[in-house]
Amino acid sequence: MSLKEYTAEQFKKFGPAELDIHQDVAQLTADLLDIYSVSGEEKRLADAVENALTNLENLEITRDGDSIIARTDFGKDKRVVLAGHLDTVPLPAVEGSEGTVPSVWKEEAGERVLFGRGATDMKGGVAVQLALAAHLTDSAYDITYVFYDHEEVSSELSGLGRLMRNHAEKLTDADFAVLLEPTDGTIEGGCNGTMRFWIHTQGLRAHSGRAWKGKNAIHQLADILTRLSNYEPQTYDVEGLAFREGLSAVEISGGVAGNVIPDEASVHINYRFAPNKTLDEAIAHVEEVFAGYELDFVDQSSAARPGLDAPMSRSLIESVGQEPKPKYGWTDVARFSEIGISAVNFGPGDALLAHSDNEHVKASDIQRTYEQLKNWLTA
Amino acid sequence: MSLKEYTAEQFKKFGPAELDIHQDVAQLTADLLDIYSVSGEEKRLADAVENALTNLENLEITRDGDSIIARTDFGKDKRVVLAGHLDTVPLPAVEGSEGTVPSVWKEEAGERVLFGRGATDMKGGVAVQLALAAHLTDSAYDITYVFYDHEEVSSELSGLGRLMRNHAEKLTDADFAVLLEPTDGTIEGGCNGTMRFWIHTQGLRAHSGRAWKGKNAIHQLADILTRLSNYEPQTYDVEGLAFREGLSAVEISGGVAGNVIPDEASVHINYRFAPNKTLDEAIAHVEEVFAGYELDFVDQSSAARPGLDAPMSRSLIESVGQEPKPKYGWTDVARFSEIGISAVNFGPGDALLAHSDNEHVKASDIQRTYEQLKNWLTA
Repeated sequence: MSLKEYTAEQFKKFGPAELDIHQDVAQLTADLLDIYSVSGEEKRLADAVENALTNLENLEITRDGDSIIARTDFGKDKRVVLAGHLDTVPLPAVEGSEGTVPSVWKEEAGERVLFGRGATDMKGGVAVQLALAAHLTDSAYDITYVFYDHEEVSSELSGLGRLMRNHAEKLTDADFAVLLEPTDGTIEGGCNGTMRFWIHTQGLRAHSGRAWKGKNAIHQLADILTRLSNYEPQTYDVEGLAFREGLSAVEISGGVAGNVIPDEASVHINYRFAPNKTLDEAIAHVEEVFAGYELDFVDQSSAARPGLDAPMSRSLIESVGQEPKPKYGWTDVARFSEIGISAVNFGPGDALLAHSDNEHVKASDIQRTYEQLKNWLTA
Repeated sequence: MSLKEYTAEQFKKFGPAELDIHQDVAQLTADLLDIYSVSGEEKRLADAVENALTNLENLEITRDGDSIIARTDFGKDKRVVLAGHLDTVPLPAVEGSEGTVPSVWKEEAGERVLFGRGATDMKGGVAVQLALAAHLTDSAYDITYVFYDHEEVSSELSGLGRLMRNHAEKLTDADFAVLLEPTDGTIEGGCNGTMRFWIHTQGLRAHSGRAWKGKNAIHQLADILTRLSNYEPQTYDVEGLAFREGLSAVEISGGVAGNVIPDEASVHINYRFAPNKTLDEAIAHVEEVFAGYELDFVDQSSAARPGLDAPMSRSLIESVGQEPKPKYGWTDVARFSEIGISAVNFGPGDALLAHSDNEHVKASDIQRTYEQLKNWLTA
């Protein structure tokens, strides 16, 4: 098929205004790719999703900004959340044109492969949610479908966070959540937490020709960098999954001029911590590692336990039939974990392709994920 | 006296076009301050100096750009250079106006004090040179007066360096040089050398959520900063003067983004070394301190030995009657030292005030320096 090229402005008006959510789930994914939904501009896609869900029977729909909650009322004892975000990162540049590529099907090694922004992260997952909503008229569990905006940007803008603040009662009654972020065919449990902080050193400015009159703030970083360099990140087993930690300087700065002893220097440190720790425990740990220094925190996000011990989790793992893995990157399973709902990541596509200009997903991966979730839900 | 305020443009045309170099040397300094001569714009002052010297008898004058060499021909065995730069750093900002202050006399503790850009660095010294040229019709030594441009800027622009390249024969026949940079009443011998270099570390970029896939270039700075932090700068006795060294980080940088293991980091280091070392020996020393790293040199300037052992130096010290001191900052005595001429710093004003918005010099300091040099030269 030929490459379709559009300017971003054309693309914003391109694609189906109405979604056929009963069609093949892979083709549904392509239709979702054809609706522009970079963070902050999810409205057209949210409208299409809301319309499609409203046309179904028996779903109670709540719209909040460009986020949607759609709840079944099958009268079951247990309830599961199926969640995914509608937004994507900005479009990849297309070489030799100012255009963008909504969706392109290619044939690779006998497989149909869908290329385009959102193919991996995570319109395949959203298509699976919509197809399940379309086809499941009954299920072993009641289902709360959640579609949300602003996942790919600053945490405080998160549509899921907003839903949890504004409509907690429609979310907290769930027993389990599946976040359809790409996990390449298996279940990825929990996620590492992450925090960032600065350590600043203070010195005394002086001319470098009379260095003894000053106190060098950069030299004082030696101790901090030595602690970092000597630190041995641990790997923790949590519910059978190995979560590997990391403690890394991500930025360093200091200096006034080539002939001045600097009076200020700073190092910015990122701690990725396993879900065997609460946020407070993780803070206590870095405060111990850097005892004697003040930590100036920039952000702090909890880890999420894998949730693999939960009975619904065990049945999902069995249904998928693959060894679960840990999720290293932070995902919204941590938000579900924070409100007391066990959650796992399970969705089509390879997370390592997310945000790349080469984002793609196999049709068969989307279809298989759909089948696996459908089998599990109707078992 | 009232504060005179001018815009820089007015100031550039202000002040005497002709210098009276026979008047009181302190008032001559004020007249020099009233002629704008920020580096690169020394022409008006150089013209005035050249005219004043041309009106004297028995001086052989060479003009090169805005630098001037004026040589006596007293027929003496020995020859001394008296050298000073004509340029100043940019003007201080005057609060509440866009004006500048050419020269202002104030009364402080019964002393007449001259304020203004160049008061310390170094129009008092230039005034002393001019007054000596005006008044000395004979001397114990022949004298080579040197006035030069572009001292306050990048080393390769130096007017003195240019004179040494273009008119070496008019300089190298001297036995001794006095650089009239401010030394606050005593002789400052030699100067420390200075060099600057970068050390870069290389790592491997990775997502900080998978830190073990990368190699952190900032963590690799730990060893370099530890060497710096543990380094104990030495003080060396050279010809009876104590030269204190310094090895200082002056800048540090590294980092890509808050979630990326950085693959590059750098630290910029300044070594101030005593004149017991040649430039090559100083380079060998830092290469030993940072063995295993490549040093990326930005600049390298030799130290200058104090030159206090030279007979003319000894007689000058005796005449001044103050204990000589080492000069920590780099000055053009190093250029004289490089062409084989012993040189010392001796001029009116406190070097610590140089370049400050509060630059000033006492009339009596300028007058005393003039008398001391005159007595020495005519002894």
